[in-house]
Amino acid sequence: MNNNYRTYIEKMQQIADIRNAAAVLNWDEETNLPEKGAAFRGKQLATLSTLAHDCFADKELGTLLQKLSTDTTLNEVQKRNISKTLEDYQKNKKYSSKFVHQLSVASSRSYHAWIKARKENNFALYQPALEEMISLKQQEAELLGYTSHPYDALLDDFEKGATVKMLDRLFDQVKTGLQPFIDKILSQLPLDNRLLHQHFDKNMQWEFSLSLLQAMGFDFKAGRQDLSEHPFTTSFNAQDVRVTTRIDENDFAFITWSSIHEGGHALYEQGLPADQYGLPAGEATSLSIHESQSRLWENNIGRGRSFWKYFYPQLQKRFPEQLKDNTLQAFYQSMNKIQTTPIRTESDELTYHFHILIRYEIEKGLLSGDISVHNLKEAWNAAYKKYLGIDIQDDKSGVLQDIHWCHGGFGYFPTYSLGSFYAAQFYQTAIQQIPDLEREIAQGNFDKILHWLRTNIHQYGSLYKSEELCKRVTGTTLDFNFFMNYAQKKYGEIYQL
Amino acid sequence: MNNNYRTYIEKMQQIADIRNAAAVLNWDEETNLPEKGAAFRGKQLATLSTLAHDCFADKELGTLLQKLSTDTTLNEVQKRNISKTLEDYQKNKKYSSKFVHQLSVASSRSYHAWIKARKENNFALYQPALEEMISLKQQEAELLGYTSHPYDALLDDFEKGATVKMLDRLFDQVKTGLQPFIDKILSQLPLDNRLLHQHFDKNMQWEFSLSLLQAMGFDFKAGRQDLSEHPFTTSFNAQDVRVTTRIDENDFAFITWSSIHEGGHALYEQGLPADQYGLPAGEATSLSIHESQSRLWENNIGRGRSFWKYFYPQLQKRFPEQLKDNTLQAFYQSMNKIQTTPIRTESDELTYHFHILIRYEIEKGLLSGDISVHNLKEAWNAAYKKYLGIDIQDDKSGVLQDIHWCHGGFGYFPTYSLGSFYAAQFYQTAIQQIPDLEREIAQGNFDKILHWLRTNIHQYGSLYKSEELCKRVTGTTLDFNFFMNYAQKKYGEIYQL
Repeated sequence: MNNNYRTYIEKMQQIADIRNAAAVLNWDEETNLPEKGAAFRGKQLATLSTLAHDCFADKELGTLLQKLSTDTTLNEVQKRNISKTLEDYQKNKKYSSKFVHQLSVASSRSYHAWIKARKENNFALYQPALEEMISLKQQEAELLGYTSHPYDALLDDFEKGATVKMLDRLFDQVKTGLQPFIDKILSQLPLDNRLLHQHFDKNMQWEFSLSLLQAMGFDFKAGRQDLSEHPFTTSFNAQDVRVTTRIDENDFAFITWSSIHEGGHALYEQGLPADQYGLPAGEATSLSIHESQSRLWENNIGRGRSFWKYFYPQLQKRFPEQLKDNTLQAFYQSMNKIQTTPIRTESDELTYHFHILIRYEIEKGLLSGDISVHNLKEAWNAAYKKYLGIDIQDDKSGVLQDIHWCHGGFGYFPTYSLGSFYAAQFYQTAIQQIPDLEREIAQGNFDKILHWLRTNIHQYGSLYKSEELCKRVTGTTLDFNFFMNYAQKKYGEIYQL
Repeated sequence: MNNNYRTYIEKMQQIADIRNAAAVLNWDEETNLPEKGAAFRGKQLATLSTLAHDCFADKELGTLLQKLSTDTTLNEVQKRNISKTLEDYQKNKKYSSKFVHQLSVASSRSYHAWIKARKENNFALYQPALEEMISLKQQEAELLGYTSHPYDALLDDFEKGATVKMLDRLFDQVKTGLQPFIDKILSQLPLDNRLLHQHFDKNMQWEFSLSLLQAMGFDFKAGRQDLSEHPFTTSFNAQDVRVTTRIDENDFAFITWSSIHEGGHALYEQGLPADQYGLPAGEATSLSIHESQSRLWENNIGRGRSFWKYFYPQLQKRFPEQLKDNTLQAFYQSMNKIQTTPIRTESDELTYHFHILIRYEIEKGLLSGDISVHNLKEAWNAAYKKYLGIDIQDDKSGVLQDIHWCHGGFGYFPTYSLGSFYAAQFYQTAIQQIPDLEREIAQGNFDKILHWLRTNIHQYGSLYKSEELCKRVTGTTLDFNFFMNYAQKKYGEIYQL
């Protein structure tokens, strides 16, 4: 290995060490932090962020990257690492320290305003802070530059290469394809899912969720599961990946599909090449591909009949009183009930995409100025009426429900839908390439699907962008028809359409 | 506040943030880290240490400290902060980055050699790494400088102002005063402590230990208790202080006095002034004073009759089967049984000091060259025979039992004894100043003693060195007679001497 490249690795790993230390502090904040520790923890995290930012903005690193970018002795992986790092470096340089600081202060202010507004169920309390945040994000878009829509500049932050043009086309298909199908489902008699809402002992739910993670292939020697208010996955390196979950004693669904979902994220992180720690080849490629992994496990596998052919008899043994009189079919239908709800995180895998569509259209409008924060609540409520037929009752179950905007996360939401669509496309490809896949799953054997994901997706880290990766794996770039076909086949059967 | 002082605070708090982030990572390593995560965690910790060291070695900080050290506008606390920081800064500058790195590598190598040697119960496997470590520590002593004994230079690292001269005198008193007293006790019939070794349910032990911490005044909104292999206390700031403990189902003593001990450390940390975060006035003054707090709670209070007058009836209710036929007196005697053992951490509060004396004499000899690593095991075994009458059976329960030397912690052990002796002196003073103290404790009321500790010790952080603080609190510097009197009174009564 040449000396410049070795120095590059050292510098990048130092930055990764600082960022991952911050990730440990964040994880601890969600799982363990005593109440009074929050203020100092915030300070400690801010110091680490600044340090990481400064290390990455280091001029020596810039010179080194320039040199390495024309170094013909590098191999393909090394070249891709350098070109991706250089791209990030140049982007990072566009942010002045002052602007980073402004964003960080606004984010903190906006978060506290949001908490207060939620508590009092009053959007007006959040409005000024959100206005400031949006104005900063508009500045950020100008600073980063874009060709057709300011939102493009921000989308790129969460999903390299995503644009308004691409998403408009995609969500048009959601409207023309998915909406009539959902309408048809909703015109049927609703399914009965009360069996999920019996009382299930907390410890036994916890034990069962661990057994699911174990079966999926989650390596407990390189990770753990804990409890937190909102489930999430974090990784400090491929050898230490942590998921969190939450238990509701009166809703069996909660821990189960949240553990499977986070487990999908975690398998991706555990499958990244540890020897590329700190380098692009050692990092997940994008939020949408990350989400494709969690949703493939949660929905395509974890809400499938094969999966529960294996696990449901076990579950009946664990909870005989609650489940002995309920068939696998009843259980399968319960977990796949389609129904509208005002809350995104409580929605099913079909109506979910209208929650995202609504946020996408609103973010676009906020960035272009077509929607003002002053009109935001009305725009939100009108969109819920239009797309989901729902009358929003109050701010908390309406415009105040998500945390994303507090932290300036404009452009994040679309990656959730992209994740589902990629998942459908990947899973269909996997089924074609692994003929006995569903039979394997019905026997509780996930080796083949995990191996397929590891080989086709995980091992590459971020060497390929989402679309490039998708094409390599499935032969074509993202195609919404895969999701539509999956939905029609599965729910056509369940609802006998 | 003047601008220079403000800059000084900013710089010091940045360093504190990095060090405390490292402390979070260390805590997580002991409580949560999955097995495979150890290597990357080591790397992340090394990066944070280097960053903290570099920030503290920063020339600008040096210039600023020089300026502030002659600034007459500062108040008393500010002046003490500056002079103490300047002292640390100048000491830190004596270490080259190369030497710091050498020490860190040797420490890691030595730790792994120790683990291996323990596993195979073979001191010879540890010998080469320990030799290297001692040679480095001898270099360190030269580099730091000393007037009479190289060990003085290292002692100062753990206990500012401690010297061979002072410790020789102290341990002479241990030999002439404590040894004959212990001999007298050991010539009596041994006490029966089997009641502690019944089966006690783990969860119930855990609950009881939490109730003890709560009663002592540990603030669970500013801290928590977790489980780990070896109990310890760590603090990320006064608002987030964490203790750990361990449960042995067949030994009630373990969790109980370890939780009280760590609780004593934690109360000190929670009592430090949060507004002095990152500055000397916000930090504990020394290891010995820290240990005085843990041991005052563990022994002077927690192994006292008053304490259990309150808690023993509760304990009998929690464990009726095990305790209903055992009187408070039997329980009190059980927890205060004096007996020799080869293992330091399993020893009682009297023979303990001979374990320390042995280590002190050996460390002195290793540093001066009077003892070589080659003869270490023989020196160890001979000393255990001489002072405790014990034949050491194997290396694991002999010279390999402690972790301290792996990490170069020569000079650490004496602070344990100093802690006990300070504790006796502080507690005797507290009894004199709070006339109804024992009665309060017998009613489960710890407000007065905690207030006394807060007012006399905690609030000052490290503004005063150990001896200076001791004199302020008790009127005299450390006097071994306080401990001797405490021992004679308590154990004279128990053993009816």
